[in-house]
Amino acid sequence: MSYRTKICSALLLLIGLAGQGVLGAGLDDLTMIDNAEKVAPGIWRITIGDVSSELRYTDYAAAPPKMEALNAKSDLVYPFAEDPLSFYKSPDNRIMIRIPAAKKESLFGFGLQLDGIKKTKKVLDLNVDHWSKGGGRTHAPVPFYISSKGYGVFFNTGRFLKAYVQTSNRKDSPNLPKPVDRNPVKREPGAPGWSSMPDSDAVEAQIVGKGMEVLVFAGDDLQDIVARYNLYCGGGALPPLWGLGFWHRVPAWFNADKCNKEVALFEEKGFPLDVLGLEPGWQTYSYPCTFEWQKLRFPDPAAFSGNLLKKGIRLNLWENPYISPEGELYEPMYPLSGSHTVWLGIVPDYTLPEARKLLADQHKREHLAIGVSGYKLDEVDGYDKWLWPDHATFPSGTSAETMRQAYGLLIQNAVFKDLFKANNQRTYGQIRSSNGAASGYPYVLYSDSYNHGQYITGLSAASLSGILWTPEVRQAKTDREWLNRIQTVCFSPLAQLNGWASGKKPWSYESVVDEVQAVVELRMRLLPYLYTAFSAYQQQGIPPVRAMILEQGFQLEQSVAKQGKLDGVYNPYEEAKVVEKTDQFMFGPSILVAPFYDKQHSKRTVILPPGNWYDFYTGELAGNGKTITVEADGRMPLFVKEGTLIPMLAENITNSRDAYGMPLEVRHYGKTGGSFDLYEDDGKTFDYEQGAYRIRTLTVSKKDNGFQGSETISRDEAPALFGPVQTWSFMTK
Amino acid sequence: MSYRTKICSALLLLIGLAGQGVLGAGLDDLTMIDNAEKVAPGIWRITIGDVSSELRYTDYAAAPPKMEALNAKSDLVYPFAEDPLSFYKSPDNRIMIRIPAAKKESLFGFGLQLDGIKKTKKVLDLNVDHWSKGGGRTHAPVPFYISSKGYGVFFNTGRFLKAYVQTSNRKDSPNLPKPVDRNPVKREPGAPGWSSMPDSDAVEAQIVGKGMEVLVFAGDDLQDIVARYNLYCGGGALPPLWGLGFWHRVPAWFNADKCNKEVALFEEKGFPLDVLGLEPGWQTYSYPCTFEWQKLRFPDPAAFSGNLLKKGIRLNLWENPYISPEGELYEPMYPLSGSHTVWLGIVPDYTLPEARKLLADQHKREHLAIGVSGYKLDEVDGYDKWLWPDHATFPSGTSAETMRQAYGLLIQNAVFKDLFKANNQRTYGQIRSSNGAASGYPYVLYSDSYNHGQYITGLSAASLSGILWTPEVRQAKTDREWLNRIQTVCFSPLAQLNGWASGKKPWSYESVVDEVQAVVELRMRLLPYLYTAFSAYQQQGIPPVRAMILEQGFQLEQSVAKQGKLDGVYNPYEEAKVVEKTDQFMFGPSILVAPFYDKQHSKRTVILPPGNWYDFYTGELAGNGKTITVEADGRMPLFVKEGTLIPMLAENITNSRDAYGMPLEVRHYGKTGGSFDLYEDDGKTFDYEQGAYRIRTLTVSKKDNGFQGSETISRDEAPALFGPVQTWSFMTK
Repeated sequence: MSYRTKICSALLLLIGLAGQGVLGAGLDDLTMIDNAEKVAPGIWRITIGDVSSELRYTDYAAAPPKMEALNAKSDLVYPFAEDPLSFYKSPDNRIMIRIPAAKKESLFGFGLQLDGIKKTKKVLDLNVDHWSKGGGRTHAPVPFYISSKGYGVFFNTGRFLKAYVQTSNRKDSPNLPKPVDRNPVKREPGAPGWSSMPDSDAVEAQIVGKGMEVLVFAGDDLQDIVARYNLYCGGGALPPLWGLGFWHRVPAWFNADKCNKEVALFEEKGFPLDVLGLEPGWQTYSYPCTFEWQKLRFPDPAAFSGNLLKKGIRLNLWENPYISPEGELYEPMYPLSGSHTVWLGIVPDYTLPEARKLLADQHKREHLAIGVSGYKLDEVDGYDKWLWPDHATFPSGTSAETMRQAYGLLIQNAVFKDLFKANNQRTYGQIRSSNGAASGYPYVLYSDSYNHGQYITGLSAASLSGILWTPEVRQAKTDREWLNRIQTVCFSPLAQLNGWASGKKPWSYESVVDEVQAVVELRMRLLPYLYTAFSAYQQQGIPPVRAMILEQGFQLEQSVAKQGKLDGVYNPYEEAKVVEKTDQFMFGPSILVAPFYDKQHSKRTVILPPGNWYDFYTGELAGNGKTITVEADGRMPLFVKEGTLIPMLAENITNSRDAYGMPLEVRHYGKTGGSFDLYEDDGKTFDYEQGAYRIRTLTVSKKDNGFQGSETISRDEAPALFGPVQTWSFMTK
Repeated sequence: MSYRTKICSALLLLIGLAGQGVLGAGLDDLTMIDNAEKVAPGIWRITIGDVSSELRYTDYAAAPPKMEALNAKSDLVYPFAEDPLSFYKSPDNRIMIRIPAAKKESLFGFGLQLDGIKKTKKVLDLNVDHWSKGGGRTHAPVPFYISSKGYGVFFNTGRFLKAYVQTSNRKDSPNLPKPVDRNPVKREPGAPGWSSMPDSDAVEAQIVGKGMEVLVFAGDDLQDIVARYNLYCGGGALPPLWGLGFWHRVPAWFNADKCNKEVALFEEKGFPLDVLGLEPGWQTYSYPCTFEWQKLRFPDPAAFSGNLLKKGIRLNLWENPYISPEGELYEPMYPLSGSHTVWLGIVPDYTLPEARKLLADQHKREHLAIGVSGYKLDEVDGYDKWLWPDHATFPSGTSAETMRQAYGLLIQNAVFKDLFKANNQRTYGQIRSSNGAASGYPYVLYSDSYNHGQYITGLSAASLSGILWTPEVRQAKTDREWLNRIQTVCFSPLAQLNGWASGKKPWSYESVVDEVQAVVELRMRLLPYLYTAFSAYQQQGIPPVRAMILEQGFQLEQSVAKQGKLDGVYNPYEEAKVVEKTDQFMFGPSILVAPFYDKQHSKRTVILPPGNWYDFYTGELAGNGKTITVEADGRMPLFVKEGTLIPMLAENITNSRDAYGMPLEVRHYGKTGGSFDLYEDDGKTFDYEQGAYRIRTLTVSKKDNGFQGSETISRDEAPALFGPVQTWSFMTK
């Protein structure tokens, strides 16, 4: 047909580096991709068009690919050898890549999607935005998905990406299903009903741009696919030990005196506190910002910070990146900023080394020099009505859409590398938006959305895309909700109470004060276990807190589709409702966490994967491959795998510095022996990158009618962080 | 600065037909537009880039510009002579046009926006979509707005358009406000507070494409701006008289027998009925469709239709445009359709004359030949998950996004022009999506969204953008809601009960049967008045049902912004809430309608503009330029302007054919005389376009202590439609 010939001719002019080939009957306006380039075991790179002027997220990763770890992995077959990818480039610069998918294949991921991790039969606009309300827009719309068939796809492009995930059907597809009449005079019993979403045979994803890089990942299982993605992006972040303690943010209008009084209250109550977070009011001007101390509130910032540090408490400073005309950075940054303002502040172009240097120098002088430990980097996400428009221009020539997609990544890159890494000082902080290739950054995402169930889903979603997420606590309508939220956040990457507007303190809800303190103390006692989990993220790419689908034996298909019933107003298309099971997750290698939340505030079900699982507190067998119901007793429901060892601090502490040298209690669960490789380093510098870390292998083996424990040093390149094992607790009787 | 020089050089290569000029300090990466071309009195055309391959909505209007009517209008000054428009074209094909706007300027419109008509400080994605949930996406996202400063702007492009309506601020703008610190140590009393939405000085709107045409409209007032827009788009639609009667749609599974029984029930109850609407099941296959009669349900369609026509009842057929492989059109249409399916049906490319002819021929043979009166053209709007993807290709080379924006327009064009106009037979129907330049099409938009308050807002919104809207009724939770909804729809362009899924009939809610029948009968009696209102739409571009802001003297600024209160969870940005007054509207030249709805189901306020307004039913003075409260008495609150004449049928009728020749009652309201030019034609053909219409001038003047009425023929080029005036009712005592 003539139009096809025309389109093909156009394509021949437009195709770039990607391979050329002719697909089977029907798909002949597409170009087959047959030259995927292997870049590491189980990782292939595809390039479509000209990517030289396009931002690739991997160019702004925290570290280069961890080739040593990747090369130690199994070599695998290219997942699309049989059924190749193809692409189309339109005359108006639209690039579409088509990735085959089978009918019964489930796809998961695409970043911090708070409405669920399974993305089959959805269209996603993967644009950075202020909230996650479905449809793809979210704080961290990482364009990476994994398939139940055992591969992953990463669109390594800083463009707005629209993904049609098993929704579109080409008319010439050999797999095109036969339509079902929606209004038959009579439907035969058992015949399939009409569906508003017929099966599709592909993911079709598109951008407007000159070129696109796509990376394909294989893996031994889903966890291995995610691990390879993280390793390719430089490995996971390893926070300083203090970052894993308890965080508290005070109201925006607090001054030094009020802060000191708040800290005194923590001391008085013996409540853990590692990091005190200051909100915008610490600056002379905020929204937009100066990054300069407001001396009317903090007359002597150095003394203020120094006094806190003496108690082991670190300062974390809130900022957004938009610079006020009142700030010293405004004038030098002006020519290095974009055409448009945000809240009337200029927007630095952090692809420019000069802009990064200006920021790093000022922050080092004003903050790091007096002991500031890190930042909460806010407001880099949207909405459209607040942010620079999609047609804004930036001095580097980077497009406004790319700047929006990558701004969170760029500012993590600038602050982490130019400020902290250059100073060999680890940091841990918060970031309001992120994107692909971010796993190496010690920044944790957060939101204003505040739905507890969705916040729990966020822990699973983040783990599939190389990002960290905190379901931070702000306020609650009931004491029970408060307790449930505090419990959840204590089993997340960053345990924080954010009272910036509410002024709430951990003990603000009277009837649950003891339970709240108990779970925060448990978080502190678990530091050795959690720190090791983060080292596995750093060294092997395994997310420290993660979705159940990354566990061996967990059924991928926990989602239930309930057939919809016709209603002219409420369901005119008889749409099915999909219910996913994302309200439980893994914390570290072996602990399954099942929080109470929302309507399931005091009773809920838990799916225990195959194998014996034990109650964390009692050591009793909880079940094996079945669904159980748990009821609230004031403690977070926690279940531990057969043969697991959990290294804990022997005593409660109120600050992570007390963990240094503290003896350990090692708990053991189940009927078989096991071992645990405890990771230790100095807890604060990057010396571990030069090998300065230590591995202590804890082992429990059968002896007579019981067990015995032992510890050996497997690697001895750094001093011990924690003390020796004081107690071996064999929990299962 | 070097980057500006670079961008400017790029621009010099890219600028198309638009004028070149250098703006004042600061905006020097923009190109000034100084060559707007006058195309009619008060109308100017601007062309940016190359529009030769871009779809302009006006190319698919129902008729060419009504130059005679336009040339009779006042000549006006170009609104941007002092403060010119400018544009920017990026290396990646993004075109942005910048339109200055003042701080206190209010902008209204942008199509069928059910969340409100005022669009100041909003970002709108003007994409066709299935629902209107704010943010711009809606069934008819017409890219046309009007300003309180007395001009209108129409983006005449079939591209997705993103409009930053007074939200963005360039850093180099001479009008850039000074930021307000969000967290001052002390705020001076009376000093302005921080706002998340600082004032902006422009609308910045952008597309990705090669070129864009923009039309600027001036006008004597807001109504005149809208009228000029409609006249430039070919004038408004004039439905056949029967189209303004009562419509009833039966369930999708109904057969001929069930339909006939339903009609018999209407006869038995003496309930008006002009059009019977069949839903998908009349076809052999639906979703996708065949457009062929399902003979198991309708064994003899010609006899079925003929028997209804004998009673004066016309058939309207539901269809969506996606063609089933089971249909005779599938094979010939296949090469004329896009690359992707919708619900597994092919998608015809109706920019191609061959595709239009295939459709028109089949429809003429199968439907028109047996008396079918028109169509409900469904499903041309979205969602993304159902429609063809944005990267689909079409044989004409039209982009998928343009096809999506214009599909409703294209199918209206095909069916109206190739089928009905070619047959000199007027039609009236429904359409699920529309866009710019659609005023000449006799198709009324509708939705599944079903919020009654928003449905009323839709009547105002549609009137600003050359489209028609029906708040059709489907079901209700209470009898009162049912009555209120029926009352609203009777004062809309299309009075329809749609029972396709609910099976509801007008009398389904027992306690309000009489009130329901009364308001439908009132609708029928108002046919002479309403038909004249539509002739003013056709001839002068004045919307027959319209927003209050199009009335002289109505305060534009009825919207109230309530200052937001800080809440860390529910309002972290202290956002103000804007409440608009869009729950009343004008019906024809002189009747103000104020429906009961939602929580205001039996008591509400009404704003009466300056001038005396009278109660329609009693003739009593209701007020002058003030807000009154009305309480439900079973009737729709209606208010009539001072000196108004309302021509009505003298008696109740159940079908519009009984209006032919029926004597009139003319009601007069107020203390002064007045006149009304009653429009008449044959009610069913396009002969009026050749001048075959009649104008009867009805006049009321003072006589002695009272009034007297008289009628004269001002134009006599067609026989009378209605009978002579039987009664002059002077309502105000």
